[in-house]
Amino acid sequence: MGGSRALSLSSLCAAAAAASRSPLLSSHHRARHLRPRLAAAMSSSSAPAPGAAPAAPSASSAIDFLTLCYRLKTTKRAGWVRRGLQGPESVADHMYRMGVMALVAADLPPGVNRDRCVKMAIVHDIAEAIVGDITPADGVPKEEKNRREKEALDQMCALLGGGSRADEIRELWMEYEDNATLEAKVVKDFDKVEMILQALEYEKEQGRDLEEFFQSTAGKFQTDVGKAWAAEIASRRK
Amino acid sequence: MGGSRALSLSSLCAAAAAASRSPLLSSHHRARHLRPRLAAAMSSSSAPAPGAAPAAPSASSAIDFLTLCYRLKTTKRAGWVRRGLQGPESVADHMYRMGVMALVAADLPPGVNRDRCVKMAIVHDIAEAIVGDITPADGVPKEEKNRREKEALDQMCALLGGGSRADEIRELWMEYEDNATLEAKVVKDFDKVEMILQALEYEKEQGRDLEEFFQSTAGKFQTDVGKAWAAEIASRRK
Repeated sequence: MGGSRALSLSSLCAAAAAASRSPLLSSHHRARHLRPRLAAAMSSSSAPAPGAAPAAPSASSAIDFLTLCYRLKTTKRAGWVRRGLQGPESVADHMYRMGVMALVAADLPPGVNRDRCVKMAIVHDIAEAIVGDITPADGVPKEEKNRREKEALDQMCALLGGGSRADEIRELWMEYEDNATLEAKVVKDFDKVEMILQALEYEKEQGRDLEEFFQSTAGKFQTDVGKAWAAEIASRRK
Repeated sequence: MGGSRALSLSSLCAAAAAASRSPLLSSHHRARHLRPRLAAAMSSSSAPAPGAAPAAPSASSAIDFLTLCYRLKTTKRAGWVRRGLQGPESVADHMYRMGVMALVAADLPPGVNRDRCVKMAIVHDIAEAIVGDITPADGVPKEEKNRREKEALDQMCALLGGGSRADEIRELWMEYEDNATLEAKVVKDFDKVEMILQALEYEKEQGRDLEEFFQSTAGKFQTDVGKAWAAEIASRRK
């Protein structure tokens, strides 16, 4: 989905710094924890620099991370915003229903780890908490979009202070980005299916023609479940 | 969170029937699949009645279920609506961040199945797709609220045509409702933590006093992670 925020590395850091100025993070907390971790994030590594402050208490790190994730609720999916739809869903809404898709799919390919699909679904767009929802309509090259999102993900993982939780989130996110496993292929199909189902719902509810969303995904499904669900949605659109 | 929809069994079925009249579900599809499955749901059993139509194709069942779940995106959390907050989050937004909480918690109690917590987080309010967000402010007794939600859950599982997917969703939902396992206790704490973190975010963003949400949860956390996170949020509110 296309976003309106196009950010350089410096503005990415400014965005994260703005988060650090949030009244949700006390100045005491900010000085003690957030700046060193953001600085570490700017070096694109989740490992603390030698001599850096020790990892923050986990409650503080987790609430920092979750506070950033608030933006996933307030960031509206840019494709719907661009089309002027009423009350467009949030990025969190979209990832939520993808998680449910992973839970209800009766016919996942053999050997697919369902629980990993659920987790990948709720992680795959998480970097949009910092960079916003960048879509093809924004004219940002795919490599640049990927670079910005990877940098944002590193910042978020640094907020967690590294460790196994950051590692799992990064692994899930990279696996999806790289289309590296069968789970990633399934979740990429869910991403498209969720979008066209939402497009159909908006078409019926708001009397609009959102053909472009169907065209942009046509023929791009990688798995049988994705193809079957897309065909079912297409059959309901007629 | 308190909802504005108070429904009897007959109106629950009417709500589901309204869904069946949705233009998203074709009349052919509706006649063939949805009515028998809703009828089965009304008997509070996911097992098809003897002589009933065979289970629907899984793509059709899944898209029916996911279409109902669209309401989780459009249903705003009733506690925020009641307080007149601007742009209140959806039920899906809330469950989304709870899923992320399960993913980032570094210090879950020993033996807790993290993946089960993630799934329980995205399932626990799923019946609100039919009954809406009923809160203490609505004056519905706890037993009645539970009865309505259980009935709605049965309807949703019937939409899936029973089977292992419906079974897992029902198990996750019941386990949470019954506070039956350590996973359920963790996720119940996440439910409260997510609410007070959101309350803090709205307080700062919209200049409101949402003390009641902190008071209603005070002293009710069951796990160390819940207590630690709630304390962290309280420390940022000062």
